[in-house]
Amino acid sequence: MLTYCMRKRLCRVNSNLLQFYKHYGKSSDGGSDPASSMMQLLQRRFFIPPEDYHAVSLLKGKACAYGPLGVDLKRNMLEQWWSSMVRSRPQVFGISTLHGVGDKGAGEVEDLSKESKLVRRRQPFRTSLLQGALAQYIPSLELMNRKLPFGLAETGLCYRPEEDDSDAIGCSAEVTEASLVWFCSFRTSLQWLDYWTQHRLQWWRKFALGPSDFSMCDVQDDELIDGASRGAKVLYKFPWGTETLETLWMFSEAELLKRHPSNQAKLECRDGKKAVVPHVLSLGANMDRGVLAVLLNSLQDIQKVDNKQRLHQRTVLKLHPTLAPVKVALDMGKGSTSELRQVCEGLLHELLEVGISAWPGYMDTTHSSMDKLHTKYDEMGVLFTVMVGENTLENGLLLVRNRDTTVRETMHISEIREFILKCISKAENI
Amino acid sequence: MLTYCMRKRLCRVNSNLLQFYKHYGKSSDGGSDPASSMMQLLQRRFFIPPEDYHAVSLLKGKACAYGPLGVDLKRNMLEQWWSSMVRSRPQVFGISTLHGVGDKGAGEVEDLSKESKLVRRRQPFRTSLLQGALAQYIPSLELMNRKLPFGLAETGLCYRPEEDDSDAIGCSAEVTEASLVWFCSFRTSLQWLDYWTQHRLQWWRKFALGPSDFSMCDVQDDELIDGASRGAKVLYKFPWGTETLETLWMFSEAELLKRHPSNQAKLECRDGKKAVVPHVLSLGANMDRGVLAVLLNSLQDIQKVDNKQRLHQRTVLKLHPTLAPVKVALDMGKGSTSELRQVCEGLLHELLEVGISAWPGYMDTTHSSMDKLHTKYDEMGVLFTVMVGENTLENGLLLVRNRDTTVRETMHISEIREFILKCISKAENI
Repeated sequence: MLTYCMRKRLCRVNSNLLQFYKHYGKSSDGGSDPASSMMQLLQRRFFIPPEDYHAVSLLKGKACAYGPLGVDLKRNMLEQWWSSMVRSRPQVFGISTLHGVGDKGAGEVEDLSKESKLVRRRQPFRTSLLQGALAQYIPSLELMNRKLPFGLAETGLCYRPEEDDSDAIGCSAEVTEASLVWFCSFRTSLQWLDYWTQHRLQWWRKFALGPSDFSMCDVQDDELIDGASRGAKVLYKFPWGTETLETLWMFSEAELLKRHPSNQAKLECRDGKKAVVPHVLSLGANMDRGVLAVLLNSLQDIQKVDNKQRLHQRTVLKLHPTLAPVKVALDMGKGSTSELRQVCEGLLHELLEVGISAWPGYMDTTHSSMDKLHTKYDEMGVLFTVMVGENTLENGLLLVRNRDTTVRETMHISEIREFILKCISKAENI
Repeated sequence: MLTYCMRKRLCRVNSNLLQFYKHYGKSSDGGSDPASSMMQLLQRRFFIPPEDYHAVSLLKGKACAYGPLGVDLKRNMLEQWWSSMVRSRPQVFGISTLHGVGDKGAGEVEDLSKESKLVRRRQPFRTSLLQGALAQYIPSLELMNRKLPFGLAETGLCYRPEEDDSDAIGCSAEVTEASLVWFCSFRTSLQWLDYWTQHRLQWWRKFALGPSDFSMCDVQDDELIDGASRGAKVLYKFPWGTETLETLWMFSEAELLKRHPSNQAKLECRDGKKAVVPHVLSLGANMDRGVLAVLLNSLQDIQKVDNKQRLHQRTVLKLHPTLAPVKVALDMGKGSTSELRQVCEGLLHELLEVGISAWPGYMDTTHSSMDKLHTKYDEMGVLFTVMVGENTLENGLLLVRNRDTTVRETMHISEIREFILKCISKAENI
């Protein structure tokens, strides 16, 4: 259960969360609502640090500090985004812009007094990645020989101090955004908005255990931001209500003209034989909220009755194999410790060599039962648990347990690497 | 040549750079000094945007905005760092911390007045990644069951507004750091400092065309930062003088005690059978300055006399195959445009599918001579240029030009993917 202080702060902040906690927070079973049990799991299993204010930030869709498993999950998600949006598309180019904004044209202000320099230096930070992409539009034109459509992509931190103003304390103003800014002709812009909205929804669903929790909707006219003529959103149904993971905005050519006011000719691209100033689609995903959505979506409580009629509950983080931060945990059974350890070390390096992230469970010498071990690895979302035992020293055989089926297979140590690579690549190609 | 304004600003800032420009800047050949010709190349070839203040930031070892090629070069370097420091080491765990610091314990300040909340909210930003790692030390202890040594790694932006104070305008205060914080016992700390210094030097040299430009030195006693008992540096010999790429500091257990003053027992680890508070080694590399060092190190001017006794100059960016942002450029010769284009598109997707970054040169329909094309791709550091021609439609044969040897080979279209993968993996394993 979340601490009282944390829950109190959460409630003050967000009316959806408030309703959620009113409803579920005081449940008689001691707080087994999905959000608070998820937060405990994340703290316990090295996804986020144990201090509550990190959990609060994450619940509010902001960045928090991440522990080893959280870092790898977020890295894997950003890597998948980059690979699907940039690396596989010849018309999309990656860029990176500064976090501080407003130092543009600083070359012209050499004569400022010391004082105004000091004021300028306390520059504001970017609140989205759109402006940076618009700034790099002109040099990027050469990349495609002024041919439409093309896009500029960037992932990185943005600052949102303006949201829920009264409660910024104890909660980060940082958000990790993944942004594509897409330049296209007016006549194709509606089709592109449609294409990208569908694509983005499918991308999120690709990694989901429950795809129907991800949905999309059009932005209503009264919600449109300044300059946008249309918009769409990708949503996730959190336990406390629906929130936005990603927003798509359609802007006219005015957006580029505003950014580069004296340069209309320099802005023009070829649309067939016509020269036009492109329209702008801006896609921006909140990857911190995305991390939380993917985590909640993959959490499964499984109840089982054993043959003595006792009820067992298993909590499994069924993260998609591509996203799972740890693919394999390596542990050793009883037996001659130093020899088993050597086998584990050798196998670990074999796995790491081919990029399979492996957890050195054998280094933890506090002996815990197999049940406890499986509980731990299930909560970490580890795909396979490999047990090296006395047997392995004799005949090279290992026990490999599958997270999703809980089936234990015997396998030769020489086969394990290929077996795991195949499982992951199979999951990727579905 | 750099613009006059840019050079003037540069000179004011850095006395090494000043000497450099005094010496070389007014050279009679119109400014062919390596730094300014490099900056022009980077602007021309999509590594950085064309505005001079980006070049100034980079020359000063700060982050700048990056264009598509710069982004990929920096990504590849950070990826190599992560793979060598984190992914291949079971005792090193990745973490991520917030950019803003000072909101720790915010839960305890609920009663602050509105005014002091506003003051607090304008929180300072991190200047290094060390403090974040020290903060995550206690929860990380469980990862290794309190066994030494282990490390916490992070890459990300830091803010250095305090350096060269008078000239922060027009130059970023942002620096991308790659940091490992290594916890070990006092009795092994000197050995570890030695190990890591050697390792880091070798890492930089691994990608170098001229490894001897990278060197290391011990930090003198009067240069030690607060709390450090020893230090070492990895240096690069820039054209204007030697600068620091990476710093290694050795701290005693006092560093952890200072960060967690009331928790000595919670800080203790096992060193064999003794319980000790670990000593701390902090490694921090400036990856923006690293990008510039790698670029300058790989720049080669090659002069050739042809059989008519004419002098030709070739500028090649001989980036290490693993780091090169573009591995293959795809272009098409004269012939039936739409058919050749289809072949190019098919081949491009085949390459992108297996993660070979390919440049869609065939999309640029301004016909330029082969010489111009090679000049462009050599300056972009592209490993192979593949030409699809009429021939390809008939018998599937392509021309493949090697950046480093300039040799052109004929190859069947079905072999090209394997050929390139082999070349890259061969270079990685040297």
